[in-house]
Parts: sequence; C-alpha cells; structure tokens
Amino acid sequence: MEPRRIYDVTIPIREGMVVWPGDDPVRIRRVKSMADGDRLNKSHIEMSAHTGTHIDAPVHFIDGTGGVDSISPSLLVGPVIVVEVTGRKKIDAASLEETRIPDGVTRVILKTDNVSLAGKDHFEEDFVYLTADGAKYLVNHGVRLLGVDYYSVAEFGKGDEVHRILLSEGIVVIEGLDLRGVPVGMYRLMALPLKIAGGDGAPARVLLHSG
Amino acid sequence: MEPRRIYDVTIPIREGMVVWPGDDPVRIRRVKSMADGDRLNKSHIEMSAHTGTHIDAPVHFIDGTGGVDSISPSLLVGPVIVVEVTGRKKIDAASLEETRIPDGVTRVILKTDNVSLAGKDHFEEDFVYLTADGAKYLVNHGVRLLGVDYYSVAEFGKGDEVHRILLSEGIVVIEGLDLRGVPVGMYRLMALPLKIAGGDGAPARVLLHSG
Repeated sequence: MEPRRIYDVTIPIREGMVVWPGDDPVRIRRVKSMADGDRLNKSHIEMSAHTGTHIDAPVHFIDGTGGVDSISPSLLVGPVIVVEVTGRKKIDAASLEETRIPDGVTRVILKTDNVSLAGKDHFEEDFVYLTADGAKYLVNHGVRLLGVDYYSVAEFGKGDEVHRILLSEGIVVIEGLDLRGVPVGMYRLMALPLKIAGGDGAPARVLLHSG
Repeated sequence: MEPRRIYDVTIPIREGMVVWPGDDPVRIRRVKSMADGDRLNKSHIEMSAHTGTHIDAPVHFIDGTGGVDSISPSLLVGPVIVVEVTGRKKIDAASLEETRIPDGVTRVILKTDNVSLAGKDHFEEDFVYLTADGAKYLVNHGVRLLGVDYYSVAEFGKGDEVHRILLSEGIVVIEGLDLRGVPVGMYRLMALPLKIAGGDGAPARVLLHSG
C-alpha cells in the first residue's frame, strides 16, 4: 500500500508560462528589491484570471450568473476520483461510461493523453477535450466538480456549448491540472481559487491527498 | 455543540480594496465581455503578490531563500488553533503565554482587536502587531505557521526584525485574515497560496473547518 501523500497538481505561475492564445503573457515584476537596496523583496503580478491551473465561474460563459467567489467551499474540498481515459481525442458519454465512475462520487478528474503536454513550453491547440454528449453524461451522473488536464475542458475555439452545459448546472470546472505521476484512484481534493469578487474565473491551488 | 461548518476567512479581491500603502491598487479589467458582443467574459488582474489575505515567503525579507512555492503543502493543511488576544496593541511573549497554546499545536491564528478593522475601506496604520519578543516565543514554542488578522504581522513601518525572526525559521506567515464571526478553538486549516515560482508572497484562499 502506498503511504499517504500529497500531490500538488498545480502549474507554477511564472513569466513565460503557457497562456491561452490571445491572452496577455504573465508578468511578474519586483517593485522592491533587496539587491537594489530596498528593505525587502516585493512583487507585482499581472495575469489572466484563467492562468495556469484555474477554476471557471458560471459568469465566464453565462452573463449575469455567479462569480468564482460564489462557488461553495464545500464543493471545492472533499472526495474525488481520478479516472483515466487514454487513446482518444474526444471524451464522449461512451468513454465516460467505461471509466465506471462509482455512484455517489460527485467530483471527477479526467486524466487523458494531455498528460504528455504538461510541462511543455508552447500551447497545443490539438488537445483532448470533452464533447457536449460527455458533458451531459456528467450532469446526468450527478457530478458536481470536473477537473481536466489541459487549459480548457472543451475543444479549442469551439468551447461554448460544453462550458454552458456544465456551468449552467453549477458544476465546478477546474482546468489546467498537472497530473503527471498521479495514479488513478480516490483522493481528498482541495481546490482553492482566489476569492475574486464576481470573477469569471480565478487561478487556484489544487492538492490531492491520498490515503 | 456547533454543527460542522466551513469559515472562509479570506478577504475578497476587488478593485478599490485596501492595499498596503504605496502598493499599486488592484486592477481587474474585462478583456472579453458578453455585454460588448464577445462569446464569453474574461478578466485580467493586476495586483501585489501581498494583496488581501496572503502568505509571506522567506525571500520576502531574506534574499536568496525560498519562494512561496517552496512552502510544503503539509504545513498549509492541518490542525490549527484560533486564540484571542484583546485589549492590547502589542502582542508579546507574556500575552502569548496567557493564551495557553497547547503543546504540540504547530499552527496558530491570533484573533486580536484588529477584527474591528475588517471590512473597513481604508488602511489603518495603528494596528495590533506581534513584537520581536512574541515572535521568539512562537519559535521556541515550536509554532510552524502563524496567521494574523491584519495586513502585516509586524508593526507598521518597522516590520523587518519580526518578519526575519519568523521567516528565517521557515515559519509560514499568513496575513490579512478576516476573523469576524470565528470563535476561538481548534479547526482544520486549509491555506493555499497561488503557486508563484520563487514568489516573495502570494494571495491565498484560506478556510477553517470546524468539527
């Protein structure tokens, strides 16, 4: 049996990191620097609210709905299953059926072939994505939180429908998980986004506790 | 007995929020807006790494030491005690002795008269702070994580010594907790900062689970 351990599945935030095409790059500048004679080091950060490992809020795709600060902490912390779906580009209802998500498990993380893109220094448009059919399957299965291992849950450039299906149901969508080295199985999830008032999304720190 | 509940002790991030004197204000701008005909809403955020509820890294005050991403997640999650120290401006060793922090409790949150400043729309320089003597007491007591209820653990404009005593020992310092309505007692802490590579600090989401 594996000893109890913590997996930090968060992408580090740094200048030059991969961002969504069209987003401004992440900028981190020292506004105080001990090397320059200041009393302390202090930085200022500029980034998209959807940088790296992040959570989408309903208002990202549905005007007038809840911000990221409206997501209940009780959804963000609790049991989660990591299931593997490999060898396919589109994750549909049939692919999800094969993963045999146990009844009553309301938090699901999909580990896909996107894991090979983790740590790469460029954005890859041809990533594995969830279909509308797959999104409806998760809704019907009672899933309340979905985590994926690339920067969007949905097909590049065609993400509206899948996002709307999930977000209109109040399903928490975590994008940009780094699942390298994480075995399939049950964990305790802690996924805490910044509390941006009314935010359409927020960068998050995400941990998985085993055992 | 109180039912089990989650306290979100995080200050919301918004434009116009209180920032440390001299820091640039928080700026959140919609770079895509459905009201303007875009497919979705998307924001860009600009802020100090020490905005609102945040964690200080050793490199904030000690050049060449660890960034916020080097703090072990195992320190950031676990049992914590919230103790109250009221009626004094300076928290020294004697004040801490009176709180009777049990042996073996390594995470401590100090609830002080600063609680009356929470939610105010201006920065108050005259806040309750920890003295160097108090910082040494915590080090000697084996404390590994300290949370405070204003934007700095140390006296305004004179914070170097207290920060260095704590940070040089690898003690995690969480500043800017909103403890309104949080009773004293034991909780399970989850304090997750953004994973800013080498960062001198990072905004964090902080929850306390009771029961």
